[in-house]
Amino acid sequence: MTLSAKIVTHAESVPAGPSKKTLADYIFGRWLATAEEDEQKIGPLAGVPVLGLDALSSAAYGPEAALTLLLPLGALGLSFIVPLSGIIVAVLLVVYVSYRQTIAAYPNGGGSYTVAKENLGQGAALVAGAALALDYVLNVAVGISAGVGALVSAVPALLPHTVSLCLAILVLLTIVNLRGTRESGLTFSLPTYLFVASLGGILLWGAFKAFAAGGHPVPVEAPPALPVSTETMSLWLVVRAFASGCTAMTGVEAVSNGVPIFRRPTIANAQRTLTVIIALLVALLAGIALLARAYGIGATAPGESGYQSVLSQLAGAVIGRGPLYYVTMGSVVAVLALSANTSFADFPRLCRVLALDRFLPDTFATRGRRLVFSYGVVVLAVISGFLLVAFGGVTDRLIPLFAIGAFLAFTLSQAGMVAHWRRIGGARRSLWLNALGAAATGITLVVVVVSKFADGAWVAVLLVPLAVLTFSRIHRHYRYVGQEVNDSRPLDLSRTTSPLVVVPVQAWNKLTSRGLRFAVELSPDVRALHIVTQETQDDAPCALARTWDSLVVEPARAAGLEPPRLVVRKSTFRQFFAPLIEYVEQVRDEHPSRDVVVIVPDLVVRRWYHALLHNNRGIILKGLLRLRGGPRVIVVNTPFYLT
Amino acid sequence: MTLSAKIVTHAESVPAGPSKKTLADYIFGRWLATAEEDEQKIGPLAGVPVLGLDALSSAAYGPEAALTLLLPLGALGLSFIVPLSGIIVAVLLVVYVSYRQTIAAYPNGGGSYTVAKENLGQGAALVAGAALALDYVLNVAVGISAGVGALVSAVPALLPHTVSLCLAILVLLTIVNLRGTRESGLTFSLPTYLFVASLGGILLWGAFKAFAAGGHPVPVEAPPALPVSTETMSLWLVVRAFASGCTAMTGVEAVSNGVPIFRRPTIANAQRTLTVIIALLVALLAGIALLARAYGIGATAPGESGYQSVLSQLAGAVIGRGPLYYVTMGSVVAVLALSANTSFADFPRLCRVLALDRFLPDTFATRGRRLVFSYGVVVLAVISGFLLVAFGGVTDRLIPLFAIGAFLAFTLSQAGMVAHWRRIGGARRSLWLNALGAAATGITLVVVVVSKFADGAWVAVLLVPLAVLTFSRIHRHYRYVGQEVNDSRPLDLSRTTSPLVVVPVQAWNKLTSRGLRFAVELSPDVRALHIVTQETQDDAPCALARTWDSLVVEPARAAGLEPPRLVVRKSTFRQFFAPLIEYVEQVRDEHPSRDVVVIVPDLVVRRWYHALLHNNRGIILKGLLRLRGGPRVIVVNTPFYLT
Repeated sequence: MTLSAKIVTHAESVPAGPSKKTLADYIFGRWLATAEEDEQKIGPLAGVPVLGLDALSSAAYGPEAALTLLLPLGALGLSFIVPLSGIIVAVLLVVYVSYRQTIAAYPNGGGSYTVAKENLGQGAALVAGAALALDYVLNVAVGISAGVGALVSAVPALLPHTVSLCLAILVLLTIVNLRGTRESGLTFSLPTYLFVASLGGILLWGAFKAFAAGGHPVPVEAPPALPVSTETMSLWLVVRAFASGCTAMTGVEAVSNGVPIFRRPTIANAQRTLTVIIALLVALLAGIALLARAYGIGATAPGESGYQSVLSQLAGAVIGRGPLYYVTMGSVVAVLALSANTSFADFPRLCRVLALDRFLPDTFATRGRRLVFSYGVVVLAVISGFLLVAFGGVTDRLIPLFAIGAFLAFTLSQAGMVAHWRRIGGARRSLWLNALGAAATGITLVVVVVSKFADGAWVAVLLVPLAVLTFSRIHRHYRYVGQEVNDSRPLDLSRTTSPLVVVPVQAWNKLTSRGLRFAVELSPDVRALHIVTQETQDDAPCALARTWDSLVVEPARAAGLEPPRLVVRKSTFRQFFAPLIEYVEQVRDEHPSRDVVVIVPDLVVRRWYHALLHNNRGIILKGLLRLRGGPRVIVVNTPFYLT
Repeated sequence: MTLSAKIVTHAESVPAGPSKKTLADYIFGRWLATAEEDEQKIGPLAGVPVLGLDALSSAAYGPEAALTLLLPLGALGLSFIVPLSGIIVAVLLVVYVSYRQTIAAYPNGGGSYTVAKENLGQGAALVAGAALALDYVLNVAVGISAGVGALVSAVPALLPHTVSLCLAILVLLTIVNLRGTRESGLTFSLPTYLFVASLGGILLWGAFKAFAAGGHPVPVEAPPALPVSTETMSLWLVVRAFASGCTAMTGVEAVSNGVPIFRRPTIANAQRTLTVIIALLVALLAGIALLARAYGIGATAPGESGYQSVLSQLAGAVIGRGPLYYVTMGSVVAVLALSANTSFADFPRLCRVLALDRFLPDTFATRGRRLVFSYGVVVLAVISGFLLVAFGGVTDRLIPLFAIGAFLAFTLSQAGMVAHWRRIGGARRSLWLNALGAAATGITLVVVVVSKFADGAWVAVLLVPLAVLTFSRIHRHYRYVGQEVNDSRPLDLSRTTSPLVVVPVQAWNKLTSRGLRFAVELSPDVRALHIVTQETQDDAPCALARTWDSLVVEPARAAGLEPPRLVVRKSTFRQFFAPLIEYVEQVRDEHPSRDVVVIVPDLVVRRWYHALLHNNRGIILKGLLRLRGGPRVIVVNTPFYLT
């Protein structure tokens, strides 16, 4: 085929990356080529900090949240913490097994959105997407402020700097995540494993001491006495305690959502990571519950003097306030503050999937310099930064919203997996496991919504539909534009005529001649439009008209070109734009099949403030002609550079 | 001459004014044609309120300022007010006579700037311009806040609204002045003449009573007793009292600056207006001084309880606190607040003259819809509004600055007139009159600067050189641009070749085909540049490459046109702009004599927020190519309208 010889393909690698190191290169790292993707992938060791921080840090606040609600029962309340934790661990295990299956079924990232979309339809998928997005955003704000809260309660001198500390951690997380997935895994390994090792060690040592003492160990540092019972036990109280304790399960979906960041064998690595995370979490939750019971540790009233976190009491009871105590509490602070990192790994991927389906702007789907979806990282940082500032760095009131997002996404994902197994048939055991998961998380969701409704859960009930509506509106706009723009017909060149060119000319100078020279290159039909805004003597030809022949017409004739015509218009009201637009409209209507090009020579100044000294007619005119010119009018600014 | 037949001149009046009445028409009035200028001109009756408010209102604070400084002398101080006022009136009369001459010599507006420029050189002219500009700006802030200050001291309930009241008056003045000179004259006539009539009536009646009582009239309402003397008389004190009293002379230059706003006979009308203003001002100043002496009225300590303005004491002493008292005091308030209007008449004209000489941006020289220099009006309003807000509506501390601007301009103008008479020769009497004026105002200037230096005059000593420097820098930029742009050679069409056109093409749609169709109209040499940012299988041709022949090449051949070539570039780092700009630079360097046109099809959305959903590549690319493209690269956005 001879025609295709015209297609020139330069497939060689263009060295488009910046050649000298800029400041941005130092902060964010050099640009990574698309082909370097595999080197950015991670294994389970880095996977636990990247995707597990959210889940693991839950151990620091889940049991405490449940114990706080049991506070009015006094010592009696403590007897409920072990069975309640047992139920939570059971639900967690069900969720674990079903998410293992999800990972295997959706190796390209089986976030709740994808699973819901493929099995339950787009509507359910958008609800899941909105719920997850809410969860991720709140997780950043809640995680960072919980960590900073623990820090300032240890070092009260830092209290006035709460918001600044929160924002500093946010900036750190943002930069590390913009540097890429691998980098964030390495950065956050140390605090994660320190947390697991020190807290796990304390729990093991405490369990050994409790066993040795026949179930009644003597605390090194006695925890505060449990308060006198002020309420009698009721089912409602236990249900609410359960709902609060369920925040311990948030963050478990993160691995299934982030499968593609693992190196090969992808599925096995992702499943291993999930297993490690869940095993650690179950161990921590069970250990905390059992030792709290053994040492008689309850919650203390939050926000009152004498408040001490459950983990602090527990560490004090087992090992006393030695150096290890402080190392452990320091790692708790770090893990809480960094738990926001899970959102940074998953939120941009969620936005990307939504953008690929055209429910969010395209930009969310483009990968930045370090192969992460930078736009999502930045948007997440901005929204959660806004929340941190708005709430002054104290986000307790956001916690109920946060569990709802997570459990709504869980339930839809599990329900989607049930539909998945039914569709592909066969796998009965898998189907039942996911059905069990859906039931467990669904019931938990209902419990959380009902018991926390007045505490702020109603905001989530409002926000999720609002987000779904926004997604739909964006989608509708893109679909509409797609239809408008869609074209499979070949190029229609049947009516191609050279455009009619209008050049506004106010005086003779280099800008004018630059504009006219370009105009003559484009078309033989050029009109130089001179608008007289100053008062002049009637009918006296302006200077331009007197010299037009010698300046323009004669050189054009000499070059064998059609000379530009000078058109003079008087502006009664001293306006420049009104008569110009009117002339353009007139010319456009006189030539219904031709394009009309308006050339406005533009001065390119060397300093931005010099622009204040020049009329920026090019920009104004372009705006006006966008409004009034229509599709055939095209404004062109020819640049004139000051040397 | 046959060539000129090509020049089409449409000199007929284009109906460019808006055809249906807009909101702006109601607020600012309809657009006035340039030919309607004469109808906007005014006579002496409107001239007094337009150009005299500043001068006349000085009577309300000049004598009071002098008396305040004499306060420590007790009753003795009062004996100095008549001789001090005598000196001030004498200087005023000298200034009057010399400004009459200036008006005759400079019928096109003999502002200090113009007179200094023609006779003393550009440097002196810029100093005069800066001094006047400072004076005008401060006059707006000081006048409005003085009026509002008098109002809130009468109605203390309004005190918390001081700034809002100041801004409301500022907005009123701005709108009235944007409606045109004539309109502002009519609007401000009533308060001006009411002030002159009521205060003049009181002074006459008081003078009659004093005469009848043999120089010792009995006050209807006794003024507060004069304080006991705390200082002895010193020359320094009297000099400072004189310097303060000289604020009574500010505003006298306004008429000479605004000559062109008078109808014919222009000079006679302007001179008549000046005569009326000066006569009224002299009468008021003399009356106040004489009656203050006769009734034993001194200043009361400003800012302390029991404070009462001199005019209020005087009116109370002569006629008691009847209705006429309140009418008089009301007119004082109005005249003070509206005295800012003189600045609105003259500041824009000063800016226009500076702009015509290219010391300020051009825009200051263009007349708006009502034939006033609207830009100057708005800039004046913005600067003085800023001052009012910054000083919380209390601008006493600005008063010293204000007198310095005025007297500096006076002196330069008088000195300029001396040089004028020396140059044209002959008129000895005129020369000596102006020399006397220059000496009087020059000495006053020195007295004011020295005696008020620590009170804030040093700010003026800083601001004036700063303004002069700014004017010079602006001028230098314009001169530089003028040289760069200047061209008297005819159009050079020797190397005219069709441009090389680059169209970035990412997919086939109506935007793409619109852009390509336009490209083909412009040039036979069109390159469609496809940048592959997504990861693709190596060497597999993209969809566009596979369909290019049928979509583009064949239709172009069929239409007898050179088909656009498809150029495919892979972007290693997923960037879009970097490889595009690189390609443009490469093409530009390969064709050193041709223009390179980059066509970016642009979506025109119906709602501004839809723009958030689309990448605004056209705008970004234009900015980037302005930085890196150079003079031969021209970016064109072809609009595609969503229906």
